[in-house]
Amino acid sequence: MAQKSEALSLGVLHGPNLNLLGQREPALYGRDDLESINQRVAARASELGAEVTFFQSNIEGELVDWVQQTGARLDGLLVNAAAYTHTSVALRDALSAVGVPFVEVHLSNVFAREPYRHQSFLSDIAVGLVIGFAADSYLLALDGIVAYLRRR
Amino acid sequence: MAQKSEALSLGVLHGPNLNLLGQREPALYGRDDLESINQRVAARASELGAEVTFFQSNIEGELVDWVQQTGARLDGLLVNAAAYTHTSVALRDALSAVGVPFVEVHLSNVFAREPYRHQSFLSDIAVGLVIGFAADSYLLALDGIVAYLRRR
Amino acid sequence: MAQKSEALSLGVLHGPNLNLLGQREPALYGRDDLESINQRVAARASELGAEVTFFQSNIEGELVDWVQQTGARLDGLLVNAAAYTHTSVALRDALSAVGVPFVEVHLSNVFAREPYRHQSFLSDIAVGLVIGFAADSYLLALDGIVAYLRRR
Amino acid sequence: MAQKSEALSLGVLHGPNLNLLGQREPALYGRDDLESINQRVAARASELGAEVTFFQSNIEGELVDWVQQTGARLDGLLVNAAAYTHTSVALRDALSAVGVPFVEVHLSNVFAREPYRHQSFLSDIAVGLVIGFAADSYLLALDGIVAYLRRR
Amino acid sequence: MAQKSEALSLGVLHGPNLNLLGQREPALYGRDDLESINQRVAARASELGAEVTFFQSNIEGELVDWVQQTGARLDGLLVNAAAYTHTSVALRDALSAVGVPFVEVHLSNVFAREPYRHQSFLSDIAVGLVIGFAADSYLLALDGIVAYLRRR
Amino acid sequence: MAQKSEALSLGVLHGPNLNLLGQREPALYGRDDLESINQRVAARASELGAEVTFFQSNIEGELVDWVQQTGARLDGLLVNAAAYTHTSVALRDALSAVGVPFVEVHLSNVFAREPYRHQSFLSDIAVGLVIGFAADSYLLALDGIVAYLRRR
Amino acid sequence: MAQKSEALSLGVLHGPNLNLLGQREPALYGRDDLESINQRVAARASELGAEVTFFQSNIEGELVDWVQQTGARLDGLLVNAAAYTHTSVALRDALSAVGVPFVEVHLSNVFAREPYRHQSFLSDIAVGLVIGFAADSYLLALDGIVAYLRRR
Amino acid sequence: MAQKSEALSLGVLHGPNLNLLGQREPALYGRDDLESINQRVAARASELGAEVTFFQSNIEGELVDWVQQTGARLDGLLVNAAAYTHTSVALRDALSAVGVPFVEVHLSNVFAREPYRHQSFLSDIAVGLVIGFAADSYLLALDGIVAYLRRR
Amino acid sequence: MAQKSEALSLGVLHGPNLNLLGQREPALYGRDDLESINQRVAARASELGAEVTFFQSNIEGELVDWVQQTGARLDGLLVNAAAYTHTSVALRDALSAVGVPFVEVHLSNVFAREPYRHQSFLSDIAVGLVIGFAADSYLLALDGIVAYLRRR
Amino acid sequence: MAQKSEALSLGVLHGPNLNLLGQREPALYGRDDLESINQRVAARASELGAEVTFFQSNIEGELVDWVQQTGARLDGLLVNAAAYTHTSVALRDALSAVGVPFVEVHLSNVFAREPYRHQSFLSDIAVGLVIGFAADSYLLALDGIVAYLRRR
Amino acid sequence: MAQKSEALSLGVLHGPNLNLLGQREPALYGRDDLESINQRVAARASELGAEVTFFQSNIEGELVDWVQQTGARLDGLLVNAAAYTHTSVALRDALSAVGVPFVEVHLSNVFAREPYRHQSFLSDIAVGLVIGFAADSYLLALDGIVAYLRRR
Amino acid sequence: MAQKSEALSLGVLHGPNLNLLGQREPALYGRDDLESINQRVAARASELGAEVTFFQSNIEGELVDWVQQTGARLDGLLVNAAAYTHTSVALRDALSAVGVPFVEVHLSNVFAREPYRHQSFLSDIAVGLVIGFAADSYLLALDGIVAYLRRR
Repeated sequence: MAQKSEALSLGVLHGPNLNLLGQREPALYGRDDLESINQRVAARASELGAEVTFFQSNIEGELVDWVQQTGARLDGLLVNAAAYTHTSVALRDALSAVGVPFVEVHLSNVFAREPYRHQSFLSDIAVGLVIGFAADSYLLALDGIVAYLRRR
Repeated sequence: MAQKSEALSLGVLHGPNLNLLGQREPALYGRDDLESINQRVAARASELGAEVTFFQSNIEGELVDWVQQTGARLDGLLVNAAAYTHTSVALRDALSAVGVPFVEVHLSNVFAREPYRHQSFLSDIAVGLVIGFAADSYLLALDGIVAYLRRR
Repeated sequence: MAQKSEALSLGVLHGPNLNLLGQREPALYGRDDLESINQRVAARASELGAEVTFFQSNIEGELVDWVQQTGARLDGLLVNAAAYTHTSVALRDALSAVGVPFVEVHLSNVFAREPYRHQSFLSDIAVGLVIGFAADSYLLALDGIVAYLRRR
Repeated sequence: MAQKSEALSLGVLHGPNLNLLGQREPALYGRDDLESINQRVAARASELGAEVTFFQSNIEGELVDWVQQTGARLDGLLVNAAAYTHTSVALRDALSAVGVPFVEVHLSNVFAREPYRHQSFLSDIAVGLVIGFAADSYLLALDGIVAYLRRR
Repeated sequence: MAQKSEALSLGVLHGPNLNLLGQREPALYGRDDLESINQRVAARASELGAEVTFFQSNIEGELVDWVQQTGARLDGLLVNAAAYTHTSVALRDALSAVGVPFVEVHLSNVFAREPYRHQSFLSDIAVGLVIGFAADSYLLALDGIVAYLRRR
Repeated sequence: MAQKSEALSLGVLHGPNLNLLGQREPALYGRDDLESINQRVAARASELGAEVTFFQSNIEGELVDWVQQTGARLDGLLVNAAAYTHTSVALRDALSAVGVPFVEVHLSNVFAREPYRHQSFLSDIAVGLVIGFAADSYLLALDGIVAYLRRR
Repeated sequence: MAQKSEALSLGVLHGPNLNLLGQREPALYGRDDLESINQRVAARASELGAEVTFFQSNIEGELVDWVQQTGARLDGLLVNAAAYTHTSVALRDALSAVGVPFVEVHLSNVFAREPYRHQSFLSDIAVGLVIGFAADSYLLALDGIVAYLRRR
Repeated sequence: MAQKSEALSLGVLHGPNLNLLGQREPALYGRDDLESINQRVAARASELGAEVTFFQSNIEGELVDWVQQTGARLDGLLVNAAAYTHTSVALRDALSAVGVPFVEVHLSNVFAREPYRHQSFLSDIAVGLVIGFAADSYLLALDGIVAYLRRR
Repeated sequence: MAQKSEALSLGVLHGPNLNLLGQREPALYGRDDLESINQRVAARASELGAEVTFFQSNIEGELVDWVQQTGARLDGLLVNAAAYTHTSVALRDALSAVGVPFVEVHLSNVFAREPYRHQSFLSDIAVGLVIGFAADSYLLALDGIVAYLRRR
Repeated sequence: MAQKSEALSLGVLHGPNLNLLGQREPALYGRDDLESINQRVAARASELGAEVTFFQSNIEGELVDWVQQTGARLDGLLVNAAAYTHTSVALRDALSAVGVPFVEVHLSNVFAREPYRHQSFLSDIAVGLVIGFAADSYLLALDGIVAYLRRR
Repeated sequence: MAQKSEALSLGVLHGPNLNLLGQREPALYGRDDLESINQRVAARASELGAEVTFFQSNIEGELVDWVQQTGARLDGLLVNAAAYTHTSVALRDALSAVGVPFVEVHLSNVFAREPYRHQSFLSDIAVGLVIGFAADSYLLALDGIVAYLRRR
Repeated sequence: MAQKSEALSLGVLHGPNLNLLGQREPALYGRDDLESINQRVAARASELGAEVTFFQSNIEGELVDWVQQTGARLDGLLVNAAAYTHTSVALRDALSAVGVPFVEVHLSNVFAREPYRHQSFLSDIAVGLVIGFAADSYLLALDGIVAYLRRR
């Protein structure tokens, strides 16, 4: 497990429809597209002595596959499961099985939206949550997970 | 957006297990198979001055992909999400993100079936619903969406 | 019961407050008044070889009376029970007792409105439902019930 | 109030759709029509030293009117409110306001039917209930209310 | 099964605490003790050409035993399961297994009492219910079951 | 719409069983009969420069008719829908459709009574509510609606 | 207790955040500040032969203290508990313990707002409620409580 | 359909994350990996005169595809849908559509885990369930389905 | 506790109405009577090196007594509590107190029956469950518990 | 009824599984067995001028029998109904019928255990409750009931 | 922590409105005022070798302060949080944080009162509960906590 | 409102029991005491060009007072309302009334704790949430609110 000053390997998992970011519904999700968010995360990670692997899919089972195959070898994850946050026991089971620490991330404030977005299958097994800061949510979560991993 | 008399591009999205149509449980779903339904829809669309693209998948994320990539470029959609109607926030989010008007379609009367089929993640963002007329549900929905698009 | 090519006798039942159509809340219900909707339904029915009887009342029991006395002698019904959709077991019992096939019709998308409008005492005994196409809902439902009756 | 051996004035209130009795759904409600039930009740009442007034309406408010104007002057009532049993606070309020003892009557076993028929706005203010004996329900309820009134 | 004019063998099942009848809480249950109720039931049965067997126990399983061993050989039952009405799936299963027609009986109006007395495990498999007429409930139920058995 | 100092036309709608006021259950509803309440309201309105039209019916649909035909032409309404407060979506729809400001009125404190009287289909579209002051509730509501209309 | 023509001592209790009145969210609560409301209430009380004591606090227990120490010696109270309406059993217990008649007051129509504002711990022990007339709610409630106290 | 002594073709469907078996969370799922379980099942099936086809996927729609294409041609199935047990109406619909008898299998005792694992979309259409015996669950289920198929 | 190859002492507990097996409702429970099931279980146990004690009662407390007195001295139990599965906390407490491993057994698929049969007071403290294989359920459960005990 | 200084006759009712006390699950219920608890209660009662009768049974109906036959003649009861606390309407009815004051007793803190142990059919008709002090619960309850009886 | 024979320091926390004891609602809470209860508790504690500190406040946060500052240094507490029992997570958190053993005390039987008094935020972290013995509840709880502390 | 590069005035609100930080339950809340957290927040704020005001109270109304008097004049707030998060409508109303942007902060992952901590009266009106990073939660929230304010 990651120790102080050691290089960290992190992963960022983007769930369904996040590939549309920046193109649609900017009032809800902001104007940044996924590529630019990934670049900002990679840059900030570099400053913190960490490398980041990114993955996006609209297919629940591909997210599960990635967690098992790639995520399982990393030190920590940022997980924005988008719609699957609220419906996927399979993704929860994968994250729980591999046991890698992760932060749950949301661009929009899910508690200001529909009731079915207030429930998450991931929250209780996450290290923590960062919600509602648009693209900054990823950066804050990155800082949080790195501090968490360095402290352990 | 479609104007009066202009040719319309429409899409029909068939959800999981609809590829079995006509082969199984005809009491519930009728005797028409998916190919013949598609032909009837295409023929009727042609009379109404519209072209139709068809897609079926058993994989939730492939339906999401299609909505983003193909559906987003069309004037309107007929969506029979079958079982995913009741469980997929991801499909709802895709339809909401692309913002294309769509009609929710069901072959059988879902309200005469199990309680979990009475809930839909799509209904409140649809233009309208056509439910229970077997294969005719698609044709009625087609007439409905064309009239809706011409009127706008 | 109606056979292929035979003339059909149909009925259209309009529930409470539908006599105000076209005068109030056009954003919700459209600009057509009830008379013009009836004329469009009658014209379309004529093309399909069917005659239509119309009835509107704000009084629940008068709707029940009409179903028993007039509706019971017809081949099929279009029923837009409006507010009584959500509160009238009596109307359900009348429709169930006479056993005439009917389509449930709504002008607005009830699933995009208040939660108490998502429940219906009629849906599970209807042939099908057409919801959300403004005045066109009646015409689509007409096509649907005629096709249903011819097919039987 | 009625005393031993004194002649009793009773009323029978039939709710919506009971005018169809004997013509429709005999499996649920039996083959007796309302007229023949009334005759059997009147004959039995005569043996018990009682007179009976009958009323049926499909209109909730007319049932309320009858309770206020006619029912209020009688010694006891048999009330088969049919569908209004489950939805009418107004009928409950009328029966409660006039304060005449009444028995709740049902032809079919409502507890073997849909859940919304298991709730009644009348049961807790009734003297008692007789449920499920087809036309005999009225006769048993008649015996019950007469014994109750004589005993007081 | 019982035919017209044939002698009928009936049973009356009294549940827990009914052995206290007449001694306690007369405001709720009346002044008749169980013995006098049994005598009135036996006398009335005799007039109707029927014999009656009586049983009371405070032990749920003994009531089940009696239904299996004695009740199963009879033509019909009157069942006042008292408190077990609301908690005993075992008694329901016994009555359902032996398949003998029965009437559910209550002395007091259970719907005017605590909410947990409004639910019954027996109602939906009973022929009918007689509720709230104190000791007369048994006599009315007796008339009802005999008429039911003669009619079959 | 009503302006300062201009004469106001108001309506008072009394729902089912309110015609019994003063005759029955005075502990709940007070000793004033409906006629005397109407006179007090008319007198007070006259002082405030307003005229009042009164209507009472036990029939839900007649209340709907009155709202559409009479109520719609007035400046404001006092609505004591009594039992229909808790069950009538039709009355709500009529009030919402005509869009006339109204105050919900109750004689008794409905929150100190049965739970089903705690729910109202009218409250959220009312200007305000006055509850529990017996006949004074109408007078307070009158003052309230007049002040509201003058202020607009 | 207060008799006809006798001077009345009344109290007005303002709950948390009402000290902000007139400064914030005027669309919800109107433009009057608390001081001007108090002056209008005092002036109207003077006309009615009553004196009024006012109290506001953001601290739940200070409201309880005031009810015990000051409120208990008064003839009647107007209570706008604001947010504590929905969460404070302690305030309810204090009002119930001192037994002084009170009217529940709300500036805005709480039933047109969030669901958790539809529940009140005070309603069922209040004399009555006045809701939704902005600052006028206090004046109407004042008239109501005075009439109530004079009548007793 | 399979007859006595005839060779049986069976299928085993493993849901998401079961490919991790034996590597992770052995306290919950045991130490056997999926390959060894499959070998034990195949060996036992061979003794019973049956052949078995195996399939695992993390993708809901691929499980649906397999049921339609492969499962539909077999005599019976063992289905451990893992997380999809609790969320997939699509898988239920596929199993229901092809109509092949199946046994629901779970390695761990789902009723001793989180509440959302107590609900299954498959149980009511299964022949039976075997739950909680770790890898033995598959073997017991195999014995059960073979006995069931031979008996038919 | 049982070790590999050592003889095992097992118990089978049959709950209420199971003494009727084979005589009634064979569609639900199969044609085997309890005696023949016990013989098949004993024979199979003998092959597996185990002895079995059997007990059936319709009386909840006698089942508790047996668990305390006999069950407590055995290595493992098969428990088909029938109706008491769904209502008996006392039986749960007895099984929990003696701490002997047990398998919950059902003849019919309880999840395909009434909702109140979907809840069990025993499931979460059982080793595992075998449900829906008629008399075979006992044999599969026997194999399961023996394997479980040998493995420990 | 008991007066000051008069000797008191008390009863202690122990429900199902309490005969196992001291032998099993001492972490939950303590190390005292039932005999030693009874001795401590008898000794303390003697100091307080009271005699105590003890009864334990695992059979719900035997507890009912004892309440009717023995309990009814005593001045007060301590009732630890164990599991039947949460499921027995019959025991509640017996205690309510005989009307003897009783204290509800629990060894363990039921509110720190499973949710179904938080509900009791006895609490609202008890004089008071003593919960969670292991064997001391009986002694505290004894002091409480004696003080209560002396005070009356 | 307290050992056998060592002097114990205890605290008694009285919540809102308990300062009114003896002055109001004696039927619910008895005639003793708080001062006399405190004296009885102090006297009894002295006999048991314990000293007691008392605190009452109507302000939730002051109770929290006292628990942190005074309660935290004591060996055990008696907590009658009155209304805050049912609404205060803050008081629970304070008691949980300081970790001092405490007994939950109520004068009246809360289970015989309004439903919202049946829920407590304190019960599951208390040692035990004493409910319904008026002022004696404190004395019984004192005996209970002393015995508990001596035994540890 | 704050513009780019302008100095920002921020506030940090600590709710009940947070004054105990670092002294108790470090497993839940970490080892930092409140003073050291405040120093870290102040230092980081200084780097970001912001000043911070801190406030802690155990009294709900004092938190409301602070929001009204101090918080209202600041550019943004970090709010860790601790237990009041889940019970205080008053605090929500204060934050909503003053309209200052705020971030909801929690030290521990509330979704991994008791269910009543999963509900918040603040979330839907917050800019965003940072949950579960111990003392780092405040720092991440600080970064988030500053970025949010600069961007506006």
